[in-house]
Amino acid sequence: MIKYIEYPDAEMLKLLLQRPVNNNSADESVVASILEDVRANGDAAVRQYTEKFDHCTIGEMLVSEQEIFNAYQAVSIELKEAIETAKANIERFHRTQHVGSAPIETMPGVRCWRKSVPIETVGLYIPGGSAPLFSTVLMLAVPAVIAGCGRIVLCTPPDKNGNINPAILYAASTCGVSEIYKVGGVQAIAAMYFGTESVPQVSKICGPGNSWVTMAKQLIAKNGFPIDIPAGPSELAVYCDNTVPAEFVAADLLSQAEHGADSQVLVLSEDKGILQEIIEAIKVQVDVLPRKEIAMKALANSAAVLVKNQNDAMEIFNKYAPEHLILACDSAEILAQQVVNAGSVFIGAWSPESAGDYASGTNHTLPTNGNARGWSGVSVDTFVRKITFQHLSKEGLQRIGKTVEVMAEAEGLQAHRNAVTIRLGK
Amino acid sequence: MIKYIEYPDAEMLKLLLQRPVNNNSADESVVASILEDVRANGDAAVRQYTEKFDHCTIGEMLVSEQEIFNAYQAVSIELKEAIETAKANIERFHRTQHVGSAPIETMPGVRCWRKSVPIETVGLYIPGGSAPLFSTVLMLAVPAVIAGCGRIVLCTPPDKNGNINPAILYAASTCGVSEIYKVGGVQAIAAMYFGTESVPQVSKICGPGNSWVTMAKQLIAKNGFPIDIPAGPSELAVYCDNTVPAEFVAADLLSQAEHGADSQVLVLSEDKGILQEIIEAIKVQVDVLPRKEIAMKALANSAAVLVKNQNDAMEIFNKYAPEHLILACDSAEILAQQVVNAGSVFIGAWSPESAGDYASGTNHTLPTNGNARGWSGVSVDTFVRKITFQHLSKEGLQRIGKTVEVMAEAEGLQAHRNAVTIRLGK
Repeated sequence: MIKYIEYPDAEMLKLLLQRPVNNNSADESVVASILEDVRANGDAAVRQYTEKFDHCTIGEMLVSEQEIFNAYQAVSIELKEAIETAKANIERFHRTQHVGSAPIETMPGVRCWRKSVPIETVGLYIPGGSAPLFSTVLMLAVPAVIAGCGRIVLCTPPDKNGNINPAILYAASTCGVSEIYKVGGVQAIAAMYFGTESVPQVSKICGPGNSWVTMAKQLIAKNGFPIDIPAGPSELAVYCDNTVPAEFVAADLLSQAEHGADSQVLVLSEDKGILQEIIEAIKVQVDVLPRKEIAMKALANSAAVLVKNQNDAMEIFNKYAPEHLILACDSAEILAQQVVNAGSVFIGAWSPESAGDYASGTNHTLPTNGNARGWSGVSVDTFVRKITFQHLSKEGLQRIGKTVEVMAEAEGLQAHRNAVTIRLGK
Repeated sequence: MIKYIEYPDAEMLKLLLQRPVNNNSADESVVASILEDVRANGDAAVRQYTEKFDHCTIGEMLVSEQEIFNAYQAVSIELKEAIETAKANIERFHRTQHVGSAPIETMPGVRCWRKSVPIETVGLYIPGGSAPLFSTVLMLAVPAVIAGCGRIVLCTPPDKNGNINPAILYAASTCGVSEIYKVGGVQAIAAMYFGTESVPQVSKICGPGNSWVTMAKQLIAKNGFPIDIPAGPSELAVYCDNTVPAEFVAADLLSQAEHGADSQVLVLSEDKGILQEIIEAIKVQVDVLPRKEIAMKALANSAAVLVKNQNDAMEIFNKYAPEHLILACDSAEILAQQVVNAGSVFIGAWSPESAGDYASGTNHTLPTNGNARGWSGVSVDTFVRKITFQHLSKEGLQRIGKTVEVMAEAEGLQAHRNAVTIRLGK
């Protein structure tokens, strides 16, 4: 069960803010050998690993139009409506992220600008496993489509019968992504990285995965290949006061705890009473959860912490850099302005984290494991490059020329200098 | 000397667009052992490697105020003025990159926004070696300062006498960066990654380096740590017609060729005459260059290519994804709109690449080696995170609640559903 801690000192805090040891069971050399095999043998290797790991003999890797059509029939009207509502909100929010930058003259005759240009071919990975993560399809496909990526490739593992969950096919297709391959695991990352006969080579790979997929993404990141963000176990930190019903907070904590045994949740308050109520409410709520066992393991990594005041709480949060941060208190709007390190922030009693996971419009692909100190979550930015442009007139070059010549000379780069001198001598 | 090729077919093009083999002489296991040594032994290890690789016994790692004061005396007035002019232009351009995002209601009662928050502590690496790269100081420090980073740490290797080039100290200091450590190489990356007694731990590391530094950055990137962009040999591609003097283009090509033996330059045209003139002009100009030997090696990796038309040229460029692209022709402004993959684009006869390297205002830290397909150059974006926020009113949650409940249920995440259900039952 979740630990209760009062006024932790610096040492205790350090212990508290440690992430559960990331039990990355993936063997780097095995992952590297799968990557190499797919590079050398393409589809044949992909098929072989699909047989080995997914216990499926795939025929055509590309999902057919008929399969997508069937998925439209298979998904309930209720779920379709929910997906469409979520998609519309995600679109509305992500559309605000598309920025251009008008040209400016840094000096008379020296005009510079940036242009957002979509990545031409992008790869999205959607894990299989116990639950079909169609919400992640929305979170990756919507910004990729808004960015204007020309080709969006989605890989997801087939079940034993070679099928993909209809909700995943529906979500992808309704976003405009119809190039879906029945390939999962390390072999999917390898196929998109190198390209095979069936799967196109992409220029960036996004999406979550198990420890093997994560290792594959980290290995290609080492080669300089762009990925969305490093993946890790999910986290939630909450600050609350006694204006918020304890069962709201308990439910939020459990919604993260059910993600995985290595998830972690923290709740901080300056009110001892509410913390005790929350712990009691967790005990009641967890008992009836289908994923109780997982949640209980995550709660063992978790803590309810009594703090002196809100400033202490914010300092702890900014050190911890949580993926999700809920501020459920009277002064939540003010506290939100003090957030420095977090993935996504939920303000007030009526903003459960699960609203952002699915449908409020913000992205749920967020930095975990303290990575919020240096990384942002997925957004339209993830799917564009900002290319810079400059146009100098002859007068512009005359004005700036001396500066370039002096600096190039001082850096010992004579040819850099010449490119200006020759022009100005003309 | 640069190769001349007419109307290459697909196979020849493939050969042409290959990068020079990146002779990464860095031994991964050696780099990993230095990282580990600095993690375990901190300053002591840093001192030991500085002695070994830089042949310098450092006393205080932190550059003193006195040393910075001395640098102000040592740098010529002419160079100071050049640095100030360049800095002002870089500031003007990068200030346009600071974007907020106003809150929007994705649904009535569901308010979402993004906020750019500076990375708290960022590390900049400036290589030593033959030339003092003070221009790179400007290119990293200016956007970091504009982003608002609270603590900017700069590491650069000392010479044998324990000194840093005054131009580097001046450039850093005039940008507002005064926390400068006399530490270079892998040990500098390790020190900023782990933190030592003297060097603070940072949340992102930016800046170029030799193959050892690059390997160190790639190894920490594998661990999920954010870096600016993967580094590689410099490149330039040019399109020109006969409206541009051949010696301009020759000078531009040489300005890249002098960077390193593994640099590569390409010039494409549909005019055979100008290509021949450019090759002749290169022969003349290269002869008097101090770095002639390096440039000659780079030219051996390089090509002048006769193409059928501008569309062919743009197709080749977009496949190649050059770090720098010069469009020196009548229709340059129109062609620029067709650029999909490039780091930075220089338009017209009066826009030499060296203007952007130093002073036009755009950033010169750009993706090489085809990485422009998925990466952007350094900008203010490099030094911020975009944190998302959301505030739902009770009515907002009532409106969106069903959607969340249905989706969570379908993904098998009952506790996610409960966080809404419990609130709406209230």
